[in-house]
Amino acid sequence: MALSELHDRLRFVLVRTSHSGNIGSAARAMRTMGFDRLTLVAPQRFPDPEATALAAGADDVLGQAAIHDDLVAGLAGATFSLGLSARRRGVNLPELDPREGAAQAIAAARRGEQVALVFGNERTGLENDELARCHAMVRIPSVDDFSSLNLSQAVQVVAYELRTALLADEQPVVAQAEPDPDEIPADAEQLERFFTHLGEMLDDIEFHKGRSPTTIMLKLRKLFLRARPELRELRILHGILADAQRMAGIAHKRDG
Amino acid sequence: MALSELHDRLRFVLVRTSHSGNIGSAARAMRTMGFDRLTLVAPQRFPDPEATALAAGADDVLGQAAIHDDLVAGLAGATFSLGLSARRRGVNLPELDPREGAAQAIAAARRGEQVALVFGNERTGLENDELARCHAMVRIPSVDDFSSLNLSQAVQVVAYELRTALLADEQPVVAQAEPDPDEIPADAEQLERFFTHLGEMLDDIEFHKGRSPTTIMLKLRKLFLRARPELRELRILHGILADAQRMAGIAHKRDG
Repeated sequence: MALSELHDRLRFVLVRTSHSGNIGSAARAMRTMGFDRLTLVAPQRFPDPEATALAAGADDVLGQAAIHDDLVAGLAGATFSLGLSARRRGVNLPELDPREGAAQAIAAARRGEQVALVFGNERTGLENDELARCHAMVRIPSVDDFSSLNLSQAVQVVAYELRTALLADEQPVVAQAEPDPDEIPADAEQLERFFTHLGEMLDDIEFHKGRSPTTIMLKLRKLFLRARPELRELRILHGILADAQRMAGIAHKRDG
Repeated sequence: MALSELHDRLRFVLVRTSHSGNIGSAARAMRTMGFDRLTLVAPQRFPDPEATALAAGADDVLGQAAIHDDLVAGLAGATFSLGLSARRRGVNLPELDPREGAAQAIAAARRGEQVALVFGNERTGLENDELARCHAMVRIPSVDDFSSLNLSQAVQVVAYELRTALLADEQPVVAQAEPDPDEIPADAEQLERFFTHLGEMLDDIEFHKGRSPTTIMLKLRKLFLRARPELRELRILHGILADAQRMAGIAHKRDG
């Protein structure tokens, strides 16, 4: 199934939004995640230049927005509705986190259902009779002492989780090219050659000064093994070692 | 370990932010997820009433914000830095999605590390030399034809993933000893000193021979950032660099 078909089955419903700027920001947030079905229920003011400004180019989402007077009309056709809530509520509804909510929403869309994500007014959230039209509640796990996300931030988190769920489900398409041998970590033999070279260079620059070469080499080995150098990186390192040895050779000739 | 201790090890770094309103919205987004360590690098205007208005009560986050002129100072003490990027970039850094990035960030914080989440300018993102100070890139999986999230929306998604990761893997509270400073990865400042020393040594041994020092340094940076050297390992490396420089000094005197 094409992603776009699934996207068409998911609508974002904003209920009684007070600030039209939030409508614009929500449109932008949806659009970044590939969603464009926006339903507005009794917005305080729409269309509005503030919405357009904050949509930052997601004008198509605003232009196609459906506008209704009440939530029942806004949910027409929807078979699975999730209501966002900042607080734990007295309402007797299953409470999901955004990840579970997204998984259920995508599963429903895959079955051919129409799904609505419903967001309440900025200050008051969804009324109980609005939540009563939803199949479950989604609560973004904010901290207790500062629980209120900006409306468009809540839209962004939900849209992000929906997209992540969609992408995770996609069958891997693999016609993978052979990796460039330069871009994979060097093999054991190549690494050994590097460590041998490194040891020789340390001798040449008189690094050890009576300390145990073995201990130092073990520590350096550990460091470079952790980095898992690629072959082209090893070539650079060999070049550095060779130049340091060249300088040491000149120095030794001078001393000798 | 108390959650608050982990929160203290995670900082959000906003680099060259143009709109102070975005700083306020970002502070609010962080605060809803329990984070309050905000670092501002060269903000266009701060403090600013617009930031305060959009923080919507997260005034403590703004009030405690650290302000620095450059990213190296903003990353002081950080041992693990993740740079956000909207686009796939030519930069050769591991690319993580927000979930993987959050998992790695939380794992590092649990080990006692200081972690930075780094967000670039609204229009231009992070510059390549800023990304070069990061251990990995985090890309929010936006759609190709509308990839740019509002800055504070990106902060919200990352903060949400961090909180979700923290809640998912709450572990028994264990009285963990302070980690030995020698045994945790070096911080950004210590690494910068090493890279500066490495660059000087390459000049002294005449390594570049007409090639671009910048390209080579970027490649070496990447290699060593991947290895995440501990402080005691950096000391060995500094010692090697110093000895190679000493040899080069003798050699140059001979030539001169």
